[in-house]
Amino acid sequence: MENFIAYNPTAIHFGKDVINEISKIIKLYGNKVFLIYGKGSVVKHGYYNLIVEKLIKAGIEITEYSGIKPNPVETDVREAVEVGINNNVEIVLALGGGSVIDSAKAIAVCIPENLDVWDVVKSKVVPQKALPIFTILTLAATGTEMNPYAVIQNHKTNEKIGFGYDLMYPKHSFLDPKFTYTVPENYTAFGIVDIIAHAFENYFGYGESPLAERFVASIVKESIHYAPLVLKEPDNYDYRANIMLQSTYALNGTTVIGKAGGDWGVHNIGHILSLLYDTPHGASLSVAYPAWLKLMSNKIPEKIKKLSELIFNTDDIDTFINNLEFFFRSINAPINLIEAGIGYDKKNEIINLMKKNKVSGYNYSFDDYEKLVGLMYGS
Amino acid sequence: MENFIAYNPTAIHFGKDVINEISKIIKLYGNKVFLIYGKGSVVKHGYYNLIVEKLIKAGIEITEYSGIKPNPVETDVREAVEVGINNNVEIVLALGGGSVIDSAKAIAVCIPENLDVWDVVKSKVVPQKALPIFTILTLAATGTEMNPYAVIQNHKTNEKIGFGYDLMYPKHSFLDPKFTYTVPENYTAFGIVDIIAHAFENYFGYGESPLAERFVASIVKESIHYAPLVLKEPDNYDYRANIMLQSTYALNGTTVIGKAGGDWGVHNIGHILSLLYDTPHGASLSVAYPAWLKLMSNKIPEKIKKLSELIFNTDDIDTFINNLEFFFRSINAPINLIEAGIGYDKKNEIINLMKKNKVSGYNYSFDDYEKLVGLMYGS
Repeated sequence: MENFIAYNPTAIHFGKDVINEISKIIKLYGNKVFLIYGKGSVVKHGYYNLIVEKLIKAGIEITEYSGIKPNPVETDVREAVEVGINNNVEIVLALGGGSVIDSAKAIAVCIPENLDVWDVVKSKVVPQKALPIFTILTLAATGTEMNPYAVIQNHKTNEKIGFGYDLMYPKHSFLDPKFTYTVPENYTAFGIVDIIAHAFENYFGYGESPLAERFVASIVKESIHYAPLVLKEPDNYDYRANIMLQSTYALNGTTVIGKAGGDWGVHNIGHILSLLYDTPHGASLSVAYPAWLKLMSNKIPEKIKKLSELIFNTDDIDTFINNLEFFFRSINAPINLIEAGIGYDKKNEIINLMKKNKVSGYNYSFDDYEKLVGLMYGS
Repeated sequence: MENFIAYNPTAIHFGKDVINEISKIIKLYGNKVFLIYGKGSVVKHGYYNLIVEKLIKAGIEITEYSGIKPNPVETDVREAVEVGINNNVEIVLALGGGSVIDSAKAIAVCIPENLDVWDVVKSKVVPQKALPIFTILTLAATGTEMNPYAVIQNHKTNEKIGFGYDLMYPKHSFLDPKFTYTVPENYTAFGIVDIIAHAFENYFGYGESPLAERFVASIVKESIHYAPLVLKEPDNYDYRANIMLQSTYALNGTTVIGKAGGDWGVHNIGHILSLLYDTPHGASLSVAYPAWLKLMSNKIPEKIKKLSELIFNTDDIDTFINNLEFFFRSINAPINLIEAGIGYDKKNEIINLMKKNKVSGYNYSFDDYEKLVGLMYGS
């Protein structure tokens, strides 16, 4: 077991109608809210109106920034920071999924000292202050609602980078499973892939922690159990609630206790696809994980076997990867680049960006990109 | 799934030599430490000297209160509060196991407004302030190092009561598994019983949460795995570290997500034995759990079967209880009152105090004390 610090000050308000408490809690922190959201689905489905009505009724002032993209970009954060500063906002409230919340976290640490977001992402500047961050989650996937991490991409430098500061823990996150009823089938599935990928990334991190590894298996087993149920019945409260809970706990620290951190090699592979082809994050991971496991199967067979035993009760690596591919396919997540709509002609482009961005894991390194990308094409 | 709030602001510093950071962190909160410890085992084994040297070297002032009993009493807390107030202490630092930390938590909420501890325990007064609480754990058992709960007993009223306030979350807890090498065999075993009992109490709480239930099983399986190893080799770092981690996570909120709370009926039974005969907490639980399961086996068979399946892969309740008794016996924890040194002549005394204190669970109620105590005698 490795030395570690476990610390997570975010308060999660989970369940039916938890949003009814939000104004009361926001007012403990201030009166000027900066509401961040995406491209309008929260408006279309009525969440926006519901929240804004509650805030206005409580006498809370609202400034808005909307239009955050599914793969969030640094330019939006920079614009939002300017809007926030000009309006003297006191609190950042994210209404949306991972991209909106990640952007809101970056906005919250940039506003107090007018920092440039890309300096913060690249750790050239370490923020010393943050506006309090509130989140209302509408997509179960990234776990950002209860952790200090964010991922932002930059199309000028062709980078998609994960970063984290303790200041980016949300103060309060509101998780009403009903807010995820309207998530379309494909994004529900991609979210489930992301949940499993987060659990796996922590499993493959540095160090041995049998309890954390059982927690990983617990989440993955329950995700595999609830995935077909929620896809068949997307407005079933209990199914949505279980997926939402798995999502939060896959990446709030619980699955990495006793370890030095996660691996994140597969996420780094996935980011290349999102950068080049705007591939949804979850879809990039359902392509990348089987390929990475095949690439690593001769290098770390015992580590993969143990995970397979915990989840599928078999120590046969091929069976493990087959089961995983079968599961991803069963929820219509792509398991190779062709299924993700990325033709063979892109092979060198992918390999070249992997080389440029030095794609690898924090724990298990790799640089045989030719072989990896071949495996991602299913060969 | 039930509505719930997940919130735990305690920072856990886990691993080898984490104590080296303590002075630096304490000084962020003040300079006058109130050091609370027990009956001298921390002195005998050198932990006291190690800590005090570090604090003095950093220029931190120390006031002390020692002599906290293994089943902590309200009179010690009251005395300590007076000492703390008279010395203007700014920070409470607990060095010890559950009883020391629980007392320190009560001391920390009583000092700022000079509250009476029993008013706080009985929620007659709700504390509004607390001194910052630091803990250095020397016994893996209660999980108090990362939760807002404490249990204090009162020999005048013959009550042993658990209570909790958010103000009682420790700010920082330091968990070096090496500090538990010197725990004697019986208390190591009783600690493991307590870990399992906490996981079970949460399992039997109100609501269905499949993920939480898998987390429960994860902890119990790992405790059962590591128990014989650590008892055979008490100074093995890895074994002690795993038990310590299980202990913290059994009762830091992780095993009760998606539920309305734990049951705590078995703890309430155990408290009667500690009150009357000073039975060690863990020993009271290894007596009470099998009896309670037998009592409940006709009332909630499906709930017990599910737990049995998750842990022992069998839905036979008798096998489950037999396995549990076999395990407790294998680590020399008593599984009936006779083994705990409590003769048949005490039967009515136990039943009478159960009646007086209205012993029951928050989720599953019971009042057939005659039958229960009979089962606790192994009949």
